[in-house]
Amino acid sequence: MSTRRSFSSSTAARTLNINNINPHVKEAKYAVRGELAIKSEQYRTQLAKGEGSSLPFDSVISANIGNPQQLDQKPITFFRQVASLVENPLLLEHGDVLQKSLGYKSDAIDRAKKLLKDVKSVGAYSQSQGAPGIRKSVADFIERRDGYSADPDNIYLCAGASAGVNALMNVMLDGPKTGVLVPIPQYPLYTATLSLLDGQAVPYYLNEESQWSTDVDGMRSALKEARKNGIDVRAVVVINPGNPTGGSLDADNIKSVLQLAADEKLVVLADEVYQTNVFEGEFTSFKKCLRELQESKLNENAKFDCLELASLHSVSKGMVGECGHRGGYYEMVGFDPEVVAQIYKFVSIMLCPPVVGQCIVEMMVNPPKEGEPSYDLYRHEYDAIYNNLYERAQALYKAFKEMEGVECQSPQGSMYLYPTINLPQKAHEAAKKAGKNPDDFYCLELLDATGVCIVPGSGFGQREGTLHFRTTFLAPGTDWVSRITAFHSGFMDKYR
Amino acid sequence: MSTRRSFSSSTAARTLNINNINPHVKEAKYAVRGELAIKSEQYRTQLAKGEGSSLPFDSVISANIGNPQQLDQKPITFFRQVASLVENPLLLEHGDVLQKSLGYKSDAIDRAKKLLKDVKSVGAYSQSQGAPGIRKSVADFIERRDGYSADPDNIYLCAGASAGVNALMNVMLDGPKTGVLVPIPQYPLYTATLSLLDGQAVPYYLNEESQWSTDVDGMRSALKEARKNGIDVRAVVVINPGNPTGGSLDADNIKSVLQLAADEKLVVLADEVYQTNVFEGEFTSFKKCLRELQESKLNENAKFDCLELASLHSVSKGMVGECGHRGGYYEMVGFDPEVVAQIYKFVSIMLCPPVVGQCIVEMMVNPPKEGEPSYDLYRHEYDAIYNNLYERAQALYKAFKEMEGVECQSPQGSMYLYPTINLPQKAHEAAKKAGKNPDDFYCLELLDATGVCIVPGSGFGQREGTLHFRTTFLAPGTDWVSRITAFHSGFMDKYR
Repeated sequence: MSTRRSFSSSTAARTLNINNINPHVKEAKYAVRGELAIKSEQYRTQLAKGEGSSLPFDSVISANIGNPQQLDQKPITFFRQVASLVENPLLLEHGDVLQKSLGYKSDAIDRAKKLLKDVKSVGAYSQSQGAPGIRKSVADFIERRDGYSADPDNIYLCAGASAGVNALMNVMLDGPKTGVLVPIPQYPLYTATLSLLDGQAVPYYLNEESQWSTDVDGMRSALKEARKNGIDVRAVVVINPGNPTGGSLDADNIKSVLQLAADEKLVVLADEVYQTNVFEGEFTSFKKCLRELQESKLNENAKFDCLELASLHSVSKGMVGECGHRGGYYEMVGFDPEVVAQIYKFVSIMLCPPVVGQCIVEMMVNPPKEGEPSYDLYRHEYDAIYNNLYERAQALYKAFKEMEGVECQSPQGSMYLYPTINLPQKAHEAAKKAGKNPDDFYCLELLDATGVCIVPGSGFGQREGTLHFRTTFLAPGTDWVSRITAFHSGFMDKYR
Repeated sequence: MSTRRSFSSSTAARTLNINNINPHVKEAKYAVRGELAIKSEQYRTQLAKGEGSSLPFDSVISANIGNPQQLDQKPITFFRQVASLVENPLLLEHGDVLQKSLGYKSDAIDRAKKLLKDVKSVGAYSQSQGAPGIRKSVADFIERRDGYSADPDNIYLCAGASAGVNALMNVMLDGPKTGVLVPIPQYPLYTATLSLLDGQAVPYYLNEESQWSTDVDGMRSALKEARKNGIDVRAVVVINPGNPTGGSLDADNIKSVLQLAADEKLVVLADEVYQTNVFEGEFTSFKKCLRELQESKLNENAKFDCLELASLHSVSKGMVGECGHRGGYYEMVGFDPEVVAQIYKFVSIMLCPPVVGQCIVEMMVNPPKEGEPSYDLYRHEYDAIYNNLYERAQALYKAFKEMEGVECQSPQGSMYLYPTINLPQKAHEAAKKAGKNPDDFYCLELLDATGVCIVPGSGFGQREGTLHFRTTFLAPGTDWVSRITAFHSGFMDKYR
């Protein structure tokens, strides 16, 4: 075993360098896992190695990313019992031991058998679109949720909603003259994917003052302006419940977006991955609203019949929180079959979504039902996670409301708060001197002082002249919230 | 629950249609899961529903895709035991039951604990590059395999090698003036990805007559020609052992490719996913050959020091065969750190590879060792799979050698044979009449007559005027081989 020479220190010219690679990759921005996240991981490593004695904190709090199981959240037992059985089907030969000694109920065993019948082995490629029985379960779920039928052929399983957005955008866009309306603020997957595909992000601003709702007039003028500038705007992205905003749209708001889309021939991409993270009112899907409009008087000229809607869901969020399993799905309605065939081909090049992730999707949409053996524990765990998130959201909201210069909408949904921060002039000047945006500067100072990692508003977009940050409310305890409030008060005093 | 109207039958104009979507997606070809595969799935569904009585076969044989566990291959017990434990860590509280009643050994339990310490939960996102401990295991494996050290920071875990190729190509290419040398025949992931990215596939032909080896002179002239035509050729893809060819390269052949790459400033993409599927000679990695060249007299002007090599491996192939888990890795050596930072950002947009898949990677590169409790069973299972594949490869090769007009190189590696077929003139005419390539026509007739699904050579590329098909040798039994020989003989008689 030798490394007699140092191969990596060569300074001779390489083939690839920062000036000749794909410029669209360089343009893409993804702050959620950017500079701050990388620095926070370095702090974490330092602490783990016992080399953090010089740091002013003893733990790193990752409030930058919605990753529940990296923090406090335990997986739901039923999901993981079934996953363990599909991973090791030999266990199914020991039903007695499983039930008597290991806490498995008969419905977990039955579910594993059903899933294995569908996929044969979780180590085999499935159909590129996802296993047929799992897609059927998703369709049944959508029908129960909305009261309108869904077709398993229109369901595509994917490696998390991100992979779904990637496939849809890849097919939909045709270079720099094509564009997509994206909300500001937005989860940066959308602008990053548009950068990669050399498409145009056409921003529309959400109404912060009314719980980050969607302003259709604003969307319409953004659209008009973009089209005037020669951009072929083809789609509109709506994230509901909102990321990073935490807002939750009502049916009227959703229908007004669908009206706009039908009038203006826009495909609707409905990112509904937070559909169970709702704290005020209840979730209404774009699909349900579309079906209602299709049946309504408003559809007299059939304008809603050919509206193309893709709605996305994921196992990463909600009370499931199984990010690492990379599971999700999208339902496409109204799409031209020839376009769907191209989407099929596109996803087939990557073969198939992870099959265990597909199984988790099945359990998410078809959890134990009342009366079934695993139901009580499932319900208990689910409710505990929900209540926990609710309480943390409220505590964080309360803390933000009391902080000087901070304004925050009440938590309606998703896993995030996105407060406005008003910083003193001297803080702006200090940021400028450091070559940073003021919100980047603030978040970096917070990380360095407290170990709490959040994401500056610049990573999601914000109205000119405003500053925000996004934080999850997943981290356990209240200590980290106190770290933020203490830091904030010191920061304000320092730059007052 | 109502569908009073038929929403999908609308003929009104949609936003997206086949004429306005991304033309690069339309151009992409991926025959492995194309028309024939889709038709074979329809036959399978028909048979499963008991509606296949009119068909001239009673089962569909998927010899089109390297998907071992969809056919006969059983997963390796150790891998799946550990996977079941990381899925349901509560089982770890019952070590006694696991060992006394369920066949788990202590090293499986220890491994699960070690993996969980690294990833915390398989439901949590890992680092975008992959969990640090798993990357360390991969680096150790490479060092044991090659006798040269590897750096965990240079290892990127990915959702199967396909995702790795996708990331590397995305960063590497910059539009239609940039190109990559790809072997013909090739696994169509490469040409499909180049189509998607609007890059140029610059074909070089493999030497069929000498076991599909790499002809460096041919590569050099293909490169010269492409550069003369203004293409900025940046990389060369080598698949070793070969897909679809089944060839296996020796160290001299590999070093001659590296020489060319160093002289001509090409990044080397070494697809080594079949590195354990070797039946003749032994596998030598590009990395090892590169390190040897770097230490040799040939490196006097240091030309090998800055050679950029990315080598890919996967859990989908070999004796592991865990396709559905979507696990793999690539090691990058010699890359500019600024370029690597862009690759990091690119992969971070999709968050992380499936975490259970990452765990399977860890076990693939670090299986039970001699003397450890799970070793004997592991060894037994591994050898049985290997021998089984070897025997099937030989049987198929023997059958092909006896078929009229068929020529086949002996099976050296991978999971495929890629024989030449010489078809009578009348068959060419019949194909033309049907609007098909002759090899497409042959494979379609084979599927319709026998239920055996293989992939025509047109899906991988072949020299003008030659015809081939690719078949895996994964399907159990010999019945399906007889179906092919009987069909072939009838086909030849029909068109003689």
